[in-house]
Amino acid sequence: MRDELKHQKNLQELLGQVIDLLKKQQLVEALVHKQDTPRQELVQSLVERQHLAELQNKLDSLHPADVAFILENLSLKQRKIVWDLVKVEHDGAILLEVSDAVRENLIEDMENSEIIGAAKHLDSDEIADLVPALPKDMVLELLTSLDSQNRARVQSALSFPEGTVGALMDFDLITIRYDVSLNVVLRSLRRRRELPKHIAQLFVVDRAGNLKGLLLLRDLLLHDPEILVEEVMDKEPFFFYTNESAREAALAFERYDLISSPVVNSHHQLVGCLEIDAVVDFVQETSQKEMLSQVGLQEEEDLFAPIWKSAKNRWVWLAVNILVAFIVSRIISVFEATIEQVVALATLMPIVANIGGNTGNQTIALIIRGLAFDQIHANNFWHLLFKEVGISLMNGVLWGSVVGLFAFLLYHQFSLALVMITAMICNLLVASLVGVFVPVILHKLGRDPAIGSSVMLTAMTDSMGFFIFLGLATIFLL
Amino acid sequence: MRDELKHQKNLQELLGQVIDLLKKQQLVEALVHKQDTPRQELVQSLVERQHLAELQNKLDSLHPADVAFILENLSLKQRKIVWDLVKVEHDGAILLEVSDAVRENLIEDMENSEIIGAAKHLDSDEIADLVPALPKDMVLELLTSLDSQNRARVQSALSFPEGTVGALMDFDLITIRYDVSLNVVLRSLRRRRELPKHIAQLFVVDRAGNLKGLLLLRDLLLHDPEILVEEVMDKEPFFFYTNESAREAALAFERYDLISSPVVNSHHQLVGCLEIDAVVDFVQETSQKEMLSQVGLQEEEDLFAPIWKSAKNRWVWLAVNILVAFIVSRIISVFEATIEQVVALATLMPIVANIGGNTGNQTIALIIRGLAFDQIHANNFWHLLFKEVGISLMNGVLWGSVVGLFAFLLYHQFSLALVMITAMICNLLVASLVGVFVPVILHKLGRDPAIGSSVMLTAMTDSMGFFIFLGLATIFLL
Repeated sequence: MRDELKHQKNLQELLGQVIDLLKKQQLVEALVHKQDTPRQELVQSLVERQHLAELQNKLDSLHPADVAFILENLSLKQRKIVWDLVKVEHDGAILLEVSDAVRENLIEDMENSEIIGAAKHLDSDEIADLVPALPKDMVLELLTSLDSQNRARVQSALSFPEGTVGALMDFDLITIRYDVSLNVVLRSLRRRRELPKHIAQLFVVDRAGNLKGLLLLRDLLLHDPEILVEEVMDKEPFFFYTNESAREAALAFERYDLISSPVVNSHHQLVGCLEIDAVVDFVQETSQKEMLSQVGLQEEEDLFAPIWKSAKNRWVWLAVNILVAFIVSRIISVFEATIEQVVALATLMPIVANIGGNTGNQTIALIIRGLAFDQIHANNFWHLLFKEVGISLMNGVLWGSVVGLFAFLLYHQFSLALVMITAMICNLLVASLVGVFVPVILHKLGRDPAIGSSVMLTAMTDSMGFFIFLGLATIFLL
Repeated sequence: MRDELKHQKNLQELLGQVIDLLKKQQLVEALVHKQDTPRQELVQSLVERQHLAELQNKLDSLHPADVAFILENLSLKQRKIVWDLVKVEHDGAILLEVSDAVRENLIEDMENSEIIGAAKHLDSDEIADLVPALPKDMVLELLTSLDSQNRARVQSALSFPEGTVGALMDFDLITIRYDVSLNVVLRSLRRRRELPKHIAQLFVVDRAGNLKGLLLLRDLLLHDPEILVEEVMDKEPFFFYTNESAREAALAFERYDLISSPVVNSHHQLVGCLEIDAVVDFVQETSQKEMLSQVGLQEEEDLFAPIWKSAKNRWVWLAVNILVAFIVSRIISVFEATIEQVVALATLMPIVANIGGNTGNQTIALIIRGLAFDQIHANNFWHLLFKEVGISLMNGVLWGSVVGLFAFLLYHQFSLALVMITAMICNLLVASLVGVFVPVILHKLGRDPAIGSSVMLTAMTDSMGFFIFLGLATIFLL
């Protein structure tokens, strides 16, 4: 821990300073390549070194999260210069802070020995977080380099599937026995070289390592030192099992304002603890991934990755949407003869399809939110469905009339207006049904409803929108 | 605080139990209304009371957040029964936990005196959080009921604009002087009736109330009691000013794994502290609001609100989208003559518009993410813009060729395929420019780029998509 580091209020300013130093250094380099005399080379190397030394000093004084911010925002060439200046003992902490895309980019350039050197300064749960980004042979070498306790911990952390409490928890915790006096606890704490900065509680276990309770630092301070731990400890702390879902744990942290909770295995033995900062990172990462995956981006993009790499990241979604567009196009083509006779239909048909998609996306947003907060269940599903259907009927009649009136004012055809109204009502019905069922079914199947719901909805409201409108027109207008 | 309360692992199960009890009670009620004899009335009132007593016991043992969850998920009638059973001393804590929509619904039924009774059990910063939901006359009565210190605090909390650190901070903190010994601190702590459960640090001030540092409980425990506070305190803690943005503070909490930070006024006097749980709630609420407002929902909806109320919540967005659809429809109508001659255009035109919207939304998602993490600034804006334009050119050529080929296979017209490819490239260019500029400009104007960006983008890609495609077709195919 680098407790003494200055925290930064203004990251933009900091980034500007770093880029300035980098530019000065590059400028000197460029100048000299033009006029290559030994004398100037000497001057150049001195000036250059001075800039780099200034940069290195700056980097050394920064929090790993701030160095990570700088690395994320530098071009690939500048990023490499800065990364080479970072001391190896900070490498690990910084790698943990950068995004997956930038981490991959940084690790590409590192030797096995550098990675192992960096890992030396990390806890076992942190090493486990790095492992997925490393090549297989490096993982093996890294595991061999650890002592047996840490190796076992890393392997245990890796054995928990992503998204479980086990994969998020921290192994380093201070445990005490329930049957000792507070005085004994105080003495043993004072014997330790260091305690975590934000420590507010100690974990109480029995001889077999089973979780018995929590001893708050507050109670350790305020009670008579002769009292036994079990007399003042919190006997029923909120705990998690290693195989519980991290999402549920995050909800519990928010609900009960938890800061740090013990984690036990299936035998109720204490194996780690879940800390609020790990939970916050998890929530942040999940919601970012969700936001990006809603528009079909599979991973966060390195801002400075080459264009073709970023373009590829967007292909799957483009392909899916083009496929949907093709299908919609074929549905319209069924009615080519109708459109040829009443060309006004071509101008009006996108209205029905688009409004369907828009209202459906509102329903989806509410349902996804309800699912995220465990609010949708057998008890109220039908109520919700009927409500959404009711809303879509109401809005269909109301806004259908508006677009019907619009169509009538433009084309002075009463039957066209009626077709418009009917198509709007029907497509909003489709939108509400799809908007409720698709996310709920995806959720039931154990998949994230935020991914794919919207594409499926648009596919349905587009194709049904055109089909219903053009179909009704064919029946009633020809 | 109700520390002794059981936390719930399974909220669905809990909700089921509550609903069962409510149904039993309603069943008894209904039975009796059918056969109204005095004897049965007596039995009924006994059985009913028994169910209600059981329900009340259950509610009393629950954490406010869990009662809030139950209230959110009950129909309006059942909600009222449960709310009436909740003890007044828990009312305040529960009101703080429910969503805005449900809070409004609960407060509607409360007398002024009940609100004031509930507020008695809240801290001043919590009362300030409730105020926006209360009618004006009640606020006045509530403020008058407070003692002068609390009234001043509530008024001060209300004076900070929403979204600042001041509006989020907690006033209750334990301060100590820097020039006393640890022993004095320990004695003064022991004199206090209670200490917060998760306390990990004390705030150190001078005689004038200026922030001097933080004393970690860890250091209080481990050091010689004769040492002065200033010798072991953290002299450069990360602190916030009351008028700093809560969003920035939340980023700092995440970046530096903060748990609790002092808040000072412009004179550097300690006025409160910002706690991780308030930050987590703020982030959660903000991201929920953002998700809903992306689809034009102005507020979270009470799942059990009447249909017309929910329908109204969706109108602004519907109106905006219908307006956009009208404009798009008028753009298409300009080309009615073209469509009449080449009806294939009607089947192909939605492809160009839709793919433009899809790729543009990918760009928007990445830009909004970059803005949220302060990653977009003058230093890299042009780089980003060129990159997105490059990606759209690349994807335009690639996927434009795919749709061009599709058009050629269907209609065997080479010129139609060329029009399709060109239109795709142009519309993807429009999408990338709009996708970068709209959120950045909204952000520069101090508005949330997540709100409205997507609608503006779709308006542009739809209208430009149809215009470019039909325009090119008119020039080259007729």
